[in-house]
Amino acid sequence: MRMRNKPWAMDFLEENNNIVDIDSTYSGRVGAFFDETRPLHIEVGTGMGTFITELAKRHPEINFVGIELDKNVIVRVVEKVIEANLGNVRLVLLDANAIDTYFRNDEVSRIYLNFSDPWPKTRHEKRRLTSSTFLEKYGAILKEEGILQFKTDNRGLFEFSLVSMNTKGMHFHEVQLDLHADEPEDNIRTEYEEKFSAKGNKIYRIRASF
Amino acid sequence: MRMRNKPWAMDFLEENNNIVDIDSTYSGRVGAFFDETRPLHIEVGTGMGTFITELAKRHPEINFVGIELDKNVIVRVVEKVIEANLGNVRLVLLDANAIDTYFRNDEVSRIYLNFSDPWPKTRHEKRRLTSSTFLEKYGAILKEEGILQFKTDNRGLFEFSLVSMNTKGMHFHEVQLDLHADEPEDNIRTEYEEKFSAKGNKIYRIRASF
Ligand SMILES: C[S@@+](CC[C@H](N)C(=O)[O-])C[C@H]1O[C@@H](n2cnc3c(N)ncnc32)[C@H](O)[C@@H]1O
Ligand SMILES: C[S@@+](CC[C@H](N)C(=O)[O-])C[C@H]1O[C@@H](n2cnc3c(N)ncnc32)[C@H](O)[C@@H]1O
Repeated sequence: MRMRNKPWAMDFLEENNNIVDIDSTYSGRVGAFFDETRPLHIEVGTGMGTFITELAKRHPEINFVGIELDKNVIVRVVEKVIEANLGNVRLVLLDANAIDTYFRNDEVSRIYLNFSDPWPKTRHEKRRLTSSTFLEKYGAILKEEGILQFKTDNRGLFEFSLVSMNTKGMHFHEVQLDLHADEPEDNIRTEYEEKFSAKGNKIYRIRASF
Repeated sequence: MRMRNKPWAMDFLEENNNIVDIDSTYSGRVGAFFDETRPLHIEVGTGMGTFITELAKRHPEINFVGIELDKNVIVRVVEKVIEANLGNVRLVLLDANAIDTYFRNDEVSRIYLNFSDPWPKTRHEKRRLTSSTFLEKYGAILKEEGILQFKTDNRGLFEFSLVSMNTKGMHFHEVQLDLHADEPEDNIRTEYEEKFSAKGNKIYRIRASF
């Protein structure tokens, strides 16, 4: 997701600090970011936010937090949240590496990873969002029985993730090797999902818990 | 693998009882079937035997046992073993359900499953060679660190097998979702593998242990 630099991005985000947390104001107390207490689902690497905003519309009974590293990208998600007036979505400008300090242990019911950067080179393995260290962080913040759902079209990353999750002792609930062959009604296509599916790539999905 | 019935099949197999065991003569003592003691690798559902005979040629240091249910099919494997004069391959006419009584516990170093029947209907789940009960039998006869290698082009069966093996607590060593995209030099294509690959199907492979 390479976006043109927006010189006004930080100003815009600061003005909307009721929707987006740019300086970890709500670290350790993300519940206070919402009007109501509800189960918490998070997405790591939201991109432009099509997925999380659509999911939030369908699930007013859930609070959603979207984490995104790139200020020029997260701006687009904030705009979508404002436009749809979504009280149950908040965004955090954050590197996923800090996820386990931002959220409390056993606070999160579900984590979504969508089309995470593949980092194909072995020397970048640790940057993959399904590498051992990241899985440990997810395991810490997820409630028992909490679900990690991961979608990608990247074969190498999915192969790696299956082995990585298995090695971490995670329990596989569902594995799909061609999600669109018989697309579940509740599937929400992300921006990357639309793009890569149109190219003819297969979409892989796994749901697993610790 | 539907083969024309060969009325002479049982006679032929009986004549070659130095190569094929049709009445579990070697049950519990399969080592006696070979001239020499070597590590034991087995294939379940050999089909016509292209895979096991080629593998045996490349690995004279291993003893191979091929298990096949269908007498009309196993005949073809026996012919291949005779023709290539392979002292390190023996066949057993057997239903895989009996595998854990035929072999002793911790006797087998590797199990190969190639393009096993998919049994797509849920009510036939137990017949799949990667269902829970079969995995338990493999776990019993495999040595510690012993490997189960499974190849298939059947997406539904592979999805099922990933979940089934994970649920059984197996350790994934390698998962390939398009084996022929970067085909390992030591891959031996089975009859079904050639056929389905030519049709454009992806070939999946997993290596796992208990
Ligand atoms: C390939 S894009 C996918 C976007 C979106 N999920 C989709 O499916 O269309 C990956 C996104 O993750 C973000 N990202 C990458 N590494 C991250 C990290 N360590 N923490 C937070 N976000 C990250 C990138 O900025 C980018 O927006
Ligand atoms: C689809 S064919 C694949 C043949 C071969 N492995 C290949 O890849 O070309 C499956 C084979 O497994 C055999 N088979 C099926 N169920 C079996 C069982 N329970 N025990 C032993 N063999 C079985 C069938 O008779 C058939 O020859």
